[in-house]
Amino acid sequence: MNVYVAGTGMTKFGKHAENSMELSVEAAAKAMEDAGIAPEEIEELYVGNFAQNLFEGQAHLGPALYGSLGLKNNIKATHVESACASGSFALHEAFRAIKGGFAKTVMVVGVEKMTAKTTPEITGILATAGDAFYEAPCGITFPGYYALMASYYLKNIGGTKDDLAEIAIKNHYHASKNPYAQFQREITKEMYYGSPIIAEPLCLYDCSPISDGAAAMILTSEKKDVELASCEAAVSRMALAERGEDISWLEGVEIAGKRAYNVAGVAPEDIDVAEVHDCFTIAEVQNIEALGFYKHGEGIKAAKEKETYFDGKKPVNTDGGLKAKGHPVGATGVSMAIEVVKQLHNEAHNQVKGAEVGLISNVGGSGPSCVVGILRRS
Amino acid sequence: MNVYVAGTGMTKFGKHAENSMELSVEAAAKAMEDAGIAPEEIEELYVGNFAQNLFEGQAHLGPALYGSLGLKNNIKATHVESACASGSFALHEAFRAIKGGFAKTVMVVGVEKMTAKTTPEITGILATAGDAFYEAPCGITFPGYYALMASYYLKNIGGTKDDLAEIAIKNHYHASKNPYAQFQREITKEMYYGSPIIAEPLCLYDCSPISDGAAAMILTSEKKDVELASCEAAVSRMALAERGEDISWLEGVEIAGKRAYNVAGVAPEDIDVAEVHDCFTIAEVQNIEALGFYKHGEGIKAAKEKETYFDGKKPVNTDGGLKAKGHPVGATGVSMAIEVVKQLHNEAHNQVKGAEVGLISNVGGSGPSCVVGILRRS
Repeated sequence: MNVYVAGTGMTKFGKHAENSMELSVEAAAKAMEDAGIAPEEIEELYVGNFAQNLFEGQAHLGPALYGSLGLKNNIKATHVESACASGSFALHEAFRAIKGGFAKTVMVVGVEKMTAKTTPEITGILATAGDAFYEAPCGITFPGYYALMASYYLKNIGGTKDDLAEIAIKNHYHASKNPYAQFQREITKEMYYGSPIIAEPLCLYDCSPISDGAAAMILTSEKKDVELASCEAAVSRMALAERGEDISWLEGVEIAGKRAYNVAGVAPEDIDVAEVHDCFTIAEVQNIEALGFYKHGEGIKAAKEKETYFDGKKPVNTDGGLKAKGHPVGATGVSMAIEVVKQLHNEAHNQVKGAEVGLISNVGGSGPSCVVGILRRS
Repeated sequence: MNVYVAGTGMTKFGKHAENSMELSVEAAAKAMEDAGIAPEEIEELYVGNFAQNLFEGQAHLGPALYGSLGLKNNIKATHVESACASGSFALHEAFRAIKGGFAKTVMVVGVEKMTAKTTPEITGILATAGDAFYEAPCGITFPGYYALMASYYLKNIGGTKDDLAEIAIKNHYHASKNPYAQFQREITKEMYYGSPIIAEPLCLYDCSPISDGAAAMILTSEKKDVELASCEAAVSRMALAERGEDISWLEGVEIAGKRAYNVAGVAPEDIDVAEVHDCFTIAEVQNIEALGFYKHGEGIKAAKEKETYFDGKKPVNTDGGLKAKGHPVGATGVSMAIEVVKQLHNEAHNQVKGAEVGLISNVGGSGPSCVVGILRRS
């Protein structure tokens, strides 16, 4: 059974007055309208969310959204959580629901309403995606995890802080054309270097923001012009200390990528456009290397050499990425897939000419949860 | 592809010094030993958990447990949450992973470490399984939800508080023979009536306790002597106010039950032993009626008439149920399936003679999330 994209919808990412239910309704209603599908035709619902119980006091999002979205027929609805990869793990389960012949029309809603809390509270909530028993008690938070990986990379693998700046500049440039992005403005190298250090070597403009937002996708077994050809998952060890010596290498992305290429029958060089998990600038480098687009040590130069711009030879994060589009945790993985669908429909804000095959790589925590999905024109 | 039970394992339920990882390791190691399966043979992991991020600060349980359990090969591991039905929703996804041909050997771990928090904190955490936007702000907590349903039932459907007492007495009697139960002691009617009212008409002995525990099950496509013949899910509206006039009727259980009977090709009268979600005594009544064991209004008399004792004509909660075995939220659904497997293996502590077909009915929140599973000797 092949899996196709029937419709998509999302909110603008940013700071919203609406709660998680209201954001989800906006995204899901747009997706149903886009698909020409009524609520009673949805056969299953998977909700990707990281921590709405901590952000808003609402767990149990399956039936909460079932009711809010006006879905019918007492369908199966549940909530999947894999930290910042929650959205794509929900997509993975929805993909399987159709692939395995269990349903014909499945909705995925990724959502996170984060700004209900203060920044210090949010930093603490995000830290629950790390190892709570051995790492968190040492005081590490997510900028710290990625700063450790960035430090290792810059010292032992290659590149400079200036190369990271070029990634932030590229993704802000892409976001400047995307009305759904949180930061619709370009940044300069002066702004980058003038911004405060968050965790050495990462400064403010290396970091994705705190965001509210929702993204919805309806998958179907009925032939449509975009196919979700594969959506494969992998995990690796949670704590940085439990990984190999090169802590900058994302083994889970590498493995999930190989699985996804294999199921879809494509290779890294076939990918015309990719959305990858740049929660920090260094993470974009880690992803494009683990996915086989660049050799280890060479991905960090890609933005500086304009290769990963939408009109370059390997376009990456054409919607602005987590960095500038925003990162409402549970919505992120689904929004990546939406950008790829737009590219394959030739309707993207930064259109890649003739895009036929696209990829998403969504990562949870400091790297242990990974989903790689491949979409193509069918 | 048929789905079989390769092995099971669980901790005693109760108050433990161990954290969620340690409890999970105990349950999973027992399951692997029972199955004769090594960690590297596990192809996927689903974790059922309600709120470990609130209880212990640990979200992202897929990779956290992957590492703690010593699993290998960068398998897929994720966390499924549907409030108190989290364990059975994880089982549902694992069932599908095999049924759909995606994997041959899948582990499910249900876990909750609750006693890391105080009772008032835990009551607040559990309330996140209700409607956070309309109901929770009114101050309702879970004893309140079930007290409303019990009040409606006793006033409009039938039965008396004395009938509820008989359910508590039965389940404590069953638990008194179960070394894995939190309360291994019988209670008397005097003790029941002497206990404090929690939410009128429910007193202390109508309520399941706060518990720590883990339960693990390994499913396989290889033929074994117990088959998981179906494991079907349904949801209904979240808020009590959004349901029909009879708020005591669990529509989700009715629908999930019909789906499970249909897939397994059995009827309510074929069920030799059932584990149902008695988070409060009234919930046992609601389940056995929605599952079609008893007509609406008659299930409340079943314990008083000794029919639901292990040696009665319709044995229910032979391990003591949530009421007396304990209710570590995410572990509960998996532990129900373990008790049914023990019954079908003729190894239960309160053995039902000649049990061939068993059922689990696990409910999340005040009724909106439901999974019904059917196991049988193969």
